[in-house]
Amino acid sequence: MTAAKLVELWRGGLMESRHLGHVVIADKGGIVEAWGNPGAVIFPRSSCKMVQALPLIESGAADAAGLGTEQLALACASHNGARIHVDRVEAWLSGLGLGDADLRCGSHMPRDPAEKKRLCCSDADPCQAHNNCSGKHPGFLTLTRHLRAGPDYVEIDHPVQKAVRQAFEEVTGEVASGWGIDGCSAPNFACTVEGLARAMAGFAAPEAGLRGQAQQRLVEAMLAHPELVAGEGRACTALMRAMAGKVAVKTGAEGVFVAIAPERGLGLALKVADGATRASEAAIVAVLLHLGLLAADAPVVAEYLTGPQTNWRGRVTGELRRADGFPT
Amino acid sequence: MTAAKLVELWRGGLMESRHLGHVVIADKGGIVEAWGNPGAVIFPRSSCKMVQALPLIESGAADAAGLGTEQLALACASHNGARIHVDRVEAWLSGLGLGDADLRCGSHMPRDPAEKKRLCCSDADPCQAHNNCSGKHPGFLTLTRHLRAGPDYVEIDHPVQKAVRQAFEEVTGEVASGWGIDGCSAPNFACTVEGLARAMAGFAAPEAGLRGQAQQRLVEAMLAHPELVAGEGRACTALMRAMAGKVAVKTGAEGVFVAIAPERGLGLALKVADGATRASEAAIVAVLLHLGLLAADAPVVAEYLTGPQTNWRGRVTGELRRADGFPT
Repeated sequence: MTAAKLVELWRGGLMESRHLGHVVIADKGGIVEAWGNPGAVIFPRSSCKMVQALPLIESGAADAAGLGTEQLALACASHNGARIHVDRVEAWLSGLGLGDADLRCGSHMPRDPAEKKRLCCSDADPCQAHNNCSGKHPGFLTLTRHLRAGPDYVEIDHPVQKAVRQAFEEVTGEVASGWGIDGCSAPNFACTVEGLARAMAGFAAPEAGLRGQAQQRLVEAMLAHPELVAGEGRACTALMRAMAGKVAVKTGAEGVFVAIAPERGLGLALKVADGATRASEAAIVAVLLHLGLLAADAPVVAEYLTGPQTNWRGRVTGELRRADGFPT
Repeated sequence: MTAAKLVELWRGGLMESRHLGHVVIADKGGIVEAWGNPGAVIFPRSSCKMVQALPLIESGAADAAGLGTEQLALACASHNGARIHVDRVEAWLSGLGLGDADLRCGSHMPRDPAEKKRLCCSDADPCQAHNNCSGKHPGFLTLTRHLRAGPDYVEIDHPVQKAVRQAFEEVTGEVASGWGIDGCSAPNFACTVEGLARAMAGFAAPEAGLRGQAQQRLVEAMLAHPELVAGEGRACTALMRAMAGKVAVKTGAEGVFVAIAPERGLGLALKVADGATRASEAAIVAVLLHLGLLAADAPVVAEYLTGPQTNWRGRVTGELRRADGFPT
């Protein structure tokens, strides 16, 4: 099976660009609906942060450190580096008796306009806490402390990453096809789109026991703090708000998006073959509409899928379209 | 014929993302070599600015206004909005007795870091001269003045755009399949990838007469001022510098890239089907290497194609690869 046509950019009545990809909707029983190749091997990138956070809770490290829902939401976040994110990350680190230098995510200018302007206009460099993954890393450090492990927690043979790999393989139901180094330097394990959707279905319908409790706590934390999972102006935050906290969604680099719908017991995973974020955002909106999880008149639908494309003078130049056969 | 595999992003020894597209190398006789579908209909976007500038010269407007090579290069530019660009655009406008308000391109924050910082930290809004297309528009205005036409030079039925369409259809050898509104509000006419490559081959081997002279002047202007065609840190400028002014190249939005090689009488045109710039930049480098027009050890080759992909800590995360069969 090859990639399916998902999203197209149209201009002047002609198709200008097209995005192909793979989409799987799964429940505990397996695939409910799919487009493209469910067996396509992908890197989930940041879309699997809630999987990477499972050992933090299951080990008892989160409770030993007294982590609340804000910190659990940040552990699953790819955030804007706004003060609401950076302040909480710095407080979390200091609570561990650690500082910015103990992070291993690297630093980059934050997306948050106010914080970016503050740094730029004061000629200040961003710190590692500004990294969009800086909430996942204090989670890793909290587990590192609990395990009495060494400081280089992003190394593939570190106890933290061994625990992450085991959890990843258990919830995807697959042996990882391989691993790569993510933008934040943590290992990112590969799986199929079906495996990632299966993992999300597990979060949507958690079973009794330690694993299920951890899954439920992480989903509830994401739903309780959508602004911490991404930030203002971001698809993840806007979509969770638009679905009134009933569906957790998470994006990942290179065109990945996942969704967890507890009331329906459904998990979604999609990968845009070319890695385009504009297409993964439009595709997740299309699938959420298809499942009736998102209202067609929600502003986020127009923003990421159905709204007109406009130029610098506000003139309509075209629109995004769902490709024929996707999602219906 | 469908799109060909062009460029892939690899991570941890696995292919993470893949870009498909269409590539045509042509000379005066037609297609020399092609990948994908030469008949694919595309919008050239800004890659055809040298075509849009033909009426400016052929009408006599450029000489009547005493335009020099800097202004002709700017007419073909998608620039960074640095002072070297904005100052020249403003001087050109004032020379016409016009101002920023006479432009129809709209305004956006420039890419040039220094100018962007200056505007951002002084809470100043960018003007239309900062628009990356602001060099093309004074060209349109110069022709508008020469034709004694009305101020709304971006309207499809304006004499300037009628002249652009005629030139476009003549050099592509096609009747435009349609037209759309570009990011700068000017009409952008559709053609096949083959038609765009044919047009570039015409610029590479200009015939005697008015058309040929105009084509030669525009190519010479681009080659004389690579920094005005794009700017520091941009592929077009870096590639023209790396090829010692022997090959003119121009990017266009949504994954388009063209090249004009006068010494070889060759024209190149490529379109990445998904519209990704990273892939159009890597693909044009690959084709220029394939033709022996670019040295394998040129830093620009490593920057846009062969160099390692690194993350925020400088760790190698993967690399871009030419897909099997492309370009050889």
